Amino acid sequence: MSVSPEPAEPPKGPLTIAQLAALAGVSTATVSKVVNGRSDVAAATREQIEALIRERGYRRQRRASKSAPLIDVLFHELRGLYAIEVLNGFEEVAREHRLGVVLSELGGRHTPGQGWVEDVLARRPKGVVSVFSALTLEQSERLYSRDIPLVLLDPTGDPDHDAPSIGASNWNGGLTAARHLVGLGHRRIAVVTGPDRMEASRARLDGFRAGLDLAGATLDPALVRNGGFEIVGGREHTLELLRLDDPPTAIFACNDGMALGVYHAAAMLGVRVPRDLSVVGFDDMPQARWMIPPLTTVHQPLKEMGAAAARMIVALAAGEALEQQRLDLATELVVRDSTAAPAG
Amino acid sequence: MSVSPEPAEPPKGPLTIAQLAALAGVSTATVSKVVNGRSDVAAATREQIEALIRERGYRRQRRASKSAPLIDVLFHELRGLYAIEVLNGFEEVAREHRLGVVLSELGGRHTPGQGWVEDVLARRPKGVVSVFSALTLEQSERLYSRDIPLVLLDPTGDPDHDAPSIGASNWNGGLTAARHLVGLGHRRIAVVTGPDRMEASRARLDGFRAGLDLAGATLDPALVRNGGFEIVGGREHTLELLRLDDPPTAIFACNDGMALGVYHAAAMLGVRVPRDLSVVGFDDMPQARWMIPPLTTVHQPLKEMGAAAARMIVALAAGEALEQQRLDLATELVVRDSTAAPAG
Repeated sequence: MSVSPEPAEPPKGPLTIAQLAALAGVSTATVSKVVNGRSDVAAATREQIEALIRERGYRRQRRASKSAPLIDVLFHELRGLYAIEVLNGFEEVAREHRLGVVLSELGGRHTPGQGWVEDVLARRPKGVVSVFSALTLEQSERLYSRDIPLVLLDPTGDPDHDAPSIGASNWNGGLTAARHLVGLGHRRIAVVTGPDRMEASRARLDGFRAGLDLAGATLDPALVRNGGFEIVGGREHTLELLRLDDPPTAIFACNDGMALGVYHAAAMLGVRVPRDLSVVGFDDMPQARWMIPPLTTVHQPLKEMGAAAARMIVALAAGEALEQQRLDLATELVVRDSTAAPAG
Repeated sequence: MSVSPEPAEPPKGPLTIAQLAALAGVSTATVSKVVNGRSDVAAATREQIEALIRERGYRRQRRASKSAPLIDVLFHELRGLYAIEVLNGFEEVAREHRLGVVLSELGGRHTPGQGWVEDVLARRPKGVVSVFSALTLEQSERLYSRDIPLVLLDPTGDPDHDAPSIGASNWNGGLTAARHLVGLGHRRIAVVTGPDRMEASRARLDGFRAGLDLAGATLDPALVRNGGFEIVGGREHTLELLRLDDPPTAIFACNDGMALGVYHAAAMLGVRVPRDLSVVGFDDMPQARWMIPPLTTVHQPLKEMGAAAARMIVALAAGEALEQQRLDLATELVVRDSTAAPAG
C-alpha cells in the first residue's frame, strides 16, 4: 500500500482544460463547453470555471481552439453611410487575407447581450472589432481568455478597457474647421455638437474652440448646442439660432447629418447657404458632395479606419506586437460651396 | 487463388466520399478536401471530382458536413443605403436564430471570383443570399452539391438559375408613380431609367409606361433616358431634358439617387421643385424625406426583403419546402413635397 502524495497543485501560469477540470471538479467536456461558448452548462458551473480562467488564465490546446478564418465586426447600429464606409475598408483587408467578415448589430444599444459573446467564442474568429460600441469588462475578458484579440474602432469613451483602438484626429478636424471660418471673416459662429459623453464629439468641439481661441475669437457658450448627431437635432437648433436677435453667420455641425438639418432650417426660414449662412460639417460622407450646395466638411477616413482595424486583428492573430496601441488617422478639411465670407 | 469479381459499380444515386474516391482513384482525404472547399488539391483532380459530383450528386456524411451557425450574404457592392437597409432586415432574423452573418462584397463586380465559393464551402453556412449579384452556374452547382441553399435577392436578371428569389413589385411601383403624376395633370413626363439589363429597372419603366397608357397618355420615347442608377446620370439627363424646346413638367427617376441628380440639375438651371418641375423617385431610402423638398417616391421594402431572404434560408436549411419560389414584396407610393400640378 503506497501513500499518495498531496494532490499536486498545477504549476503557475495559465491552465489547460484538464487542469481547469481537475480544479473545478467537473469533466473536461464541461470545461470545454465553457471555453467554446456553448450554452448547455449550468450557470454556477460556468461562473466557477470563468472565475478560475480570470484568475489563472487559460492555455489553449492548439488543436481544440484553432481559430476559424473569420473576423467578427460589431456595430452598435447599422444606420447611414458610416457603417458602409467602415465595412468597405474592412472587407478589402479581409478579402486579401481570405477571411470572412461576420457582422453583428446591436440594434442601437451600445453593449451586446450575453448571447453575442457565446456565439463569438463558439465560432472562434481571428479577432473582434467593436465599432462605436463597447463590450462589458466581462465580455472582453472572456475574449482575451480565449486568445481572441479585440480592437475598438471609434471608441465611445465609455469603457476603461485597454484594448488597442483606431480613431480619427477629431480635435485637429475641429481646429481646421474653426480656422477656415475665421479666415473667411466669421466671428459669430455656432456649433451643433454630438452627444457629450462621446470621445469623438468632445474632441471636435474642443478642437473648434481652440481654433477660435488661437485666432483671437471666442466661442459664445449660448451658441453651443447639443444636436445628438441627429439630422433633426441640427434642424431644430438652427431654427432657434437663426431666430436670435444676433444670429450666427456660420454654423459648425459636428457631423454631416446635422449639417443637412442646418440646410433644412435655413430653407424653412429663407436663409441662403452660403450667402446668408456658412455651414461646415464633419465626416465627408459620400452624400456631402451631393448636398445643395455641396458641403464644406472635415473628411474622416472611415474606409481607412476600417482597413486599419482589420489589419490590427490580422497582426494580433499572428502573434505580432502592434506598433501603436492607439492609432488616430488624419482628418482633412474639404472646401466646397457651403462656406463664404459673411454678408455685409 | 480466388478470382475477384468485376469491381462493383456503386448503386445509383448520390455518392459518398468513399464512393467518389474509389471512382476517381484518389484518397478519401483528397475528395474530402474538394468537398470542403480546401485549396490544396491539383486542378485536374479537383475538376475530375467535381465532374463526378455534377453527374451523380454528392451524399454528405452527416458528421463531416454539419453546417455552421452562419449565413453568407453576398453584395455586388457596399455603396449607399440600399445595403444597410437589406442588412438590417437580415440581421434581425439572423439574431433571432443565433446565426452569424458573413458579409462578402464583390467590389462592384456582379459575379464572385473562384476563391469566394471555396471559402463558403469551407465554412459550411446554413445558406447563401446573393444580393443584386449573380453566381456562375458552376458556383451555384457547387453550393447545391453540398446542400448549401442559395436565395437571390433583387436578382439582376442575368442568370437562368432556378434559385428561389425575393424581389419587390417594381412594375406596380412604376404604375403607381405614373397614376400619381397623371392625376396631378402632367402629360409631358420624362423617365430616367436604370440599366436596361436589370430586371428591377425594366419592370419600373414598363409599369410606368402602362400607367400612362391606361390613363390615355403616352410616353414620348425621346423623354426616356438611361441614367444607370447613378446620381450623375440623373443630373446630366435632366440638364438636357430641361433645355428641350418643349421640356417635361415632371420626371420619374427610377431610383432616389437619380432623383437627387434631378434636384441638382433643377437648382443649376433655377428650375423650382415642385413649382416648375415635379419629381418622383423610387426606393424611399432614409434620406428621401430629408431632401429639399422632401421627395415623393415609391417605397421599396428593402428591410423586409432582407428579412424574408434570411427566413427562406432558415427554412431551406431545416429541410422545409418553400411556399413560394419567387416572392415579390409590395411597393407603395409615398407622397411628399416634390410633386404638384403643372404650372399654368
